Amino acid sequence: MRIAILGTGMVGRALAEGLAAAGHDVVIGTRDPDETMGRTEPDRMGNPPFPQWHAGHADIELAAQTDVGSDAEVVVNATSGAATLEALEAVGEEALGGKPLVDVANPLEFSTGRLALFTPSTDSLAERIQRTFPDARVVKALNTMNASVMISPSDLPGDHLVPIAGDDEEAKATVRSLLADLGWREEQVLDLGALTAARGMEAWLLLWIDLLQTLGTPQFNLSLSRR
Amino acid sequence: MRIAILGTGMVGRALAEGLAAAGHDVVIGTRDPDETMGRTEPDRMGNPPFPQWHAGHADIELAAQTDVGSDAEVVVNATSGAATLEALEAVGEEALGGKPLVDVANPLEFSTGRLALFTPSTDSLAERIQRTFPDARVVKALNTMNASVMISPSDLPGDHLVPIAGDDEEAKATVRSLLADLGWREEQVLDLGALTAARGMEAWLLLWIDLLQTLGTPQFNLSLSRR
Repeated sequence: MRIAILGTGMVGRALAEGLAAAGHDVVIGTRDPDETMGRTEPDRMGNPPFPQWHAGHADIELAAQTDVGSDAEVVVNATSGAATLEALEAVGEEALGGKPLVDVANPLEFSTGRLALFTPSTDSLAERIQRTFPDARVVKALNTMNASVMISPSDLPGDHLVPIAGDDEEAKATVRSLLADLGWREEQVLDLGALTAARGMEAWLLLWIDLLQTLGTPQFNLSLSRR
Repeated sequence: MRIAILGTGMVGRALAEGLAAAGHDVVIGTRDPDETMGRTEPDRMGNPPFPQWHAGHADIELAAQTDVGSDAEVVVNATSGAATLEALEAVGEEALGGKPLVDVANPLEFSTGRLALFTPSTDSLAERIQRTFPDARVVKALNTMNASVMISPSDLPGDHLVPIAGDDEEAKATVRSLLADLGWREEQVLDLGALTAARGMEAWLLLWIDLLQTLGTPQFNLSLSRR
């Protein structure tokens, strides 16, 4: 499948690597490819500059956001939540129409000193995207875990989970198949129903950040104990 | 220990039963004991009327909120989130001073058609309680699961978790001991640190409600898969 991934950070890189390794034709979309390829310093999260990563992943194309949408069969939003709508505007409403749009981003707000969400609990970033691009088929997925877990689920023991949510069943089926390509077993995928469930999936980040602090590692994931 | 539990719903009843069974001296506080003991209809959650439950738990005292605080060594808030501050006002600032106040409530907002929180992601009910009663020693605990799981953790398999948060270490130690009385093993208690972590613990409810819908049972709890 031709997959366009928006975002050059850890999440975009990890998903590009994982999906390319599964045989997909992956292009990463960025605002200005020349600027991105000219970076020499680690990004603000401390990740190596993009060109350094890209040198080891030459099979993955880099292109302008404005150019990646029309050929893509699936679009993955791996931008930061604050940059999401602008990036999707650049891809364009027409290019997004009718396609699965996998929203991996979170509406994180860093300005308050402690992680918060810029959406209220009556809304979610995924729903905002869906309202802004009504013809896209938005599926929330993979936003609930660290990038390394997304593409290496077998690194963690047991039936830990990847919740998904969306209003379009066909788009969710496509996402399920991409998750399988990344190594997720069927019983690990938990379909929470309509896109409104993205509210809880995004709110989980508020707990996730404290779990990260407490455990001292991002190598964990949501699991459920059930009878 | 003398423990005052505020709230006559499923959570208050379950905790009263569990803590009394562990040998504690438990009193349930309600606004108007005569009114509560005069109820003949199931409550709005469909639970049997309080007198019917109380008939099987005669060792558990029922008293006015205004009367339960001064003798108590620990106060447990098991009211609905919307009723919490009023109930605690009735107990009284002086009676709450210096004591562990275990906050099991959630800031649930039902008016929007779908479960939401009445606190923003920069705040929590537990922190509001702490700000309103600065001399109480608020510990957030047990709000992340169904009432039956709170008092029967061994009904579910594995090391599922009860996160706790609070600014007072001594109060947290008391809560740990009460959790042990309820059957929680030490490795199941996850101290997330300061009371600000209550934000994530309460936000979890937004995901919990969709998990409830999807799984079709409240007999589940948060667990983590980790390396």
